[in-house]
Amino acid sequence: MKGSPIILTTDFGLSDEYVGVLKGVILSINPHATIIDLSHGIPPQATGRAAEVLCKNYRYFPAGSIHVCVVDPGVGTERRIVVVRGCNQFFIGPDNGVFSRILETDQAAEVYELTNSDWFLEDISTTFHGRDIMAPAAARLSLGASINEVGPLISTDSCVTTTTTPPLVSETGIRGEISAIDRFGNLITNIEEGILIDFGLSPRFAIRIKSQLLQLHQGSYGHLPDNQPAAIINSSSMLEICVKNGNAAAILEVGIGERVVVKTK
Amino acid sequence: MKGSPIILTTDFGLSDEYVGVLKGVILSINPHATIIDLSHGIPPQATGRAAEVLCKNYRYFPAGSIHVCVVDPGVGTERRIVVVRGCNQFFIGPDNGVFSRILETDQAAEVYELTNSDWFLEDISTTFHGRDIMAPAAARLSLGASINEVGPLISTDSCVTTTTTPPLVSETGIRGEISAIDRFGNLITNIEEGILIDFGLSPRFAIRIKSQLLQLHQGSYGHLPDNQPAAIINSSSMLEICVKNGNAAAILEVGIGERVVVKTK
Amino acid sequence: MKGSPIILTTDFGLSDEYVGVLKGVILSINPHATIIDLSHGIPPQATGRAAEVLCKNYRYFPAGSIHVCVVDPGVGTERRIVVVRGCNQFFIGPDNGVFSRILETDQAAEVYELTNSDWFLEDISTTFHGRDIMAPAAARLSLGASINEVGPLISTDSCVTTTTTPPLVSETGIRGEISAIDRFGNLITNIEEGILIDFGLSPRFAIRIKSQLLQLHQGSYGHLPDNQPAAIINSSSMLEICVKNGNAAAILEVGIGERVVVKTK
Repeated sequence: MKGSPIILTTDFGLSDEYVGVLKGVILSINPHATIIDLSHGIPPQATGRAAEVLCKNYRYFPAGSIHVCVVDPGVGTERRIVVVRGCNQFFIGPDNGVFSRILETDQAAEVYELTNSDWFLEDISTTFHGRDIMAPAAARLSLGASINEVGPLISTDSCVTTTTTPPLVSETGIRGEISAIDRFGNLITNIEEGILIDFGLSPRFAIRIKSQLLQLHQGSYGHLPDNQPAAIINSSSMLEICVKNGNAAAILEVGIGERVVVKTK
Repeated sequence: MKGSPIILTTDFGLSDEYVGVLKGVILSINPHATIIDLSHGIPPQATGRAAEVLCKNYRYFPAGSIHVCVVDPGVGTERRIVVVRGCNQFFIGPDNGVFSRILETDQAAEVYELTNSDWFLEDISTTFHGRDIMAPAAARLSLGASINEVGPLISTDSCVTTTTTPPLVSETGIRGEISAIDRFGNLITNIEEGILIDFGLSPRFAIRIKSQLLQLHQGSYGHLPDNQPAAIINSSSMLEICVKNGNAAAILEVGIGERVVVKTK
Repeated sequence: MKGSPIILTTDFGLSDEYVGVLKGVILSINPHATIIDLSHGIPPQATGRAAEVLCKNYRYFPAGSIHVCVVDPGVGTERRIVVVRGCNQFFIGPDNGVFSRILETDQAAEVYELTNSDWFLEDISTTFHGRDIMAPAAARLSLGASINEVGPLISTDSCVTTTTTPPLVSETGIRGEISAIDRFGNLITNIEEGILIDFGLSPRFAIRIKSQLLQLHQGSYGHLPDNQPAAIINSSSMLEICVKNGNAAAILEVGIGERVVVKTK
């Protein structure tokens, strides 16, 4: 038996050896573990972004998957480490908001504080609990250890929530912002399709970013006019501003946090 | 049985979560799949580069390997998605030229249009068919599904070919260009060793790039003079311009597309 | 049986296809191999850095792990390729110093020259021995081949050592340098905790970098004052200069090689 797959999400990047070390620790405990990288490109300390990435993508992983999320600016302080059982999966990481979107999504989720030091590496550093505590716990769970061995069940309400800015909704529209920019220069907003549907999702919506007024297209990149910024609903059901075969971030000279306004009438 | 390995080649880069999501989808269908990254560093929308990378490297993968190539600027348009059976392997991706070098290499290759929607994810986005269509198909094939379930066999001649510029061959030499630059700053040309051999591959060949005249060395990096640009045949049998322990792209101030001329007499 | 895991450490980066090709070669010989990336972010040709990364991290991998280290500026010259059996693991790579820290750590380590050409790929390039020689050898060992098949046992003393600068220790302190900078901008020195302990490791130590005088904190990042450079012992037991929730390299405008002085009295 290989056990449930272990999925890694961190802000480590891939130029250092930190991700490889997590995998070594896991294999040392479960030599047959299946380990998958979801993303190591979370911006440093960006707990809100990690929360988004987990919430938008957990559904593409097998039921029972064990996520390890190491975006952990408070490492070595008294912040808790938790294991969430929710959305049919497990999530191990610091109690700093990285799982707050998961807890919103599954109201029946349970949270355990990870206190079982029998599971930890022998020497615990003050700066790398992903290696010393979280990876070993993931390996134990993948071997079939019970969630009851993790530590005490704690109140979901006591968990830290992220401070991601939600979009501001008024009668005439929505004011949001750019929350991520991908490799293609696509500008991903914090505005979900659901909000647009509440307003009657329409190609007449006008989307403003900087001095540009864009239309909402309902097709794909391929159907857009060349080299012109346009707005679409992306594959994660978020409003996104893109340029066909071009880099919207570079063309519009826009960074994270730039305001986006949707006029719905 | 783990089935044939699935090999991923995309222009996604590794800073976003897109590659991880492909793997999650595959594991959700075949929990025992072996998944390998060939490259996620194809420049955005560079179908010609993807075609090169696949053609130069498929031979290093096991027979029966299932390649998924997501370099797909036309996603969501009426462009076809195909499965190629050729070179003893399978190749799944858009019909936009990414497999044209494979089809050149194996004249007996067969191409199937991927139309079996039973294999797709339930919700198909307009912008991420790698996730919704190609990854699930790869997982099915890795579980042993027959290529006949993919969809109709289509004519190889009907497939889109890439527009990679071939080198221009005249009586006195070859005019090519830089088609890729690797992490070391090595400048990889579009001139294959075979063409040079036709001219009698000789250390007397003079290679010109910008105002530099270089010699063709037949050894390795280690045998070159320090800090001087030189030309060699690289490990993929392509003419390459490099600097021992240095970065040729930086030293020569050269980018993709720069002209390279080989004077053979 | 999947055999021992194969761990890859290279200076290839992840934008090219070189790492993927190593994995293809391994799977072609051992279809059930477990392959893990330790790091592909070793700076080009930085054998000393590779030696550090291997020495600091091998202990997090299972006993019997087979490391392949391709940082190989002398590829194609007469430099030897070796297999080290030491620290309960195997290490395959060029004899250019990448294993010198391992050989220091385990005085009983054995070194074999890799000469068994039956193990190599059929065609050996002059520029990619990682693919043609080292990866196939790793695959053979992972299948259970005996180390005696590798080639002749050679003298450890004959092996090349790296030229990493050790810190200079005097009566009043230590003069070292920045040997690596990670994704977070943390400045990792070449000064090990052990040396500081010899001096009586104390918060009264003064650490100077450029014009800054820093204190040695014994806690974690989370306990540091915000936005101020500070010195800590990191998770690899090295002196490190960091900025809580900030990028020390950017704030201090420091690169690799910058001098760091520890005044111990």
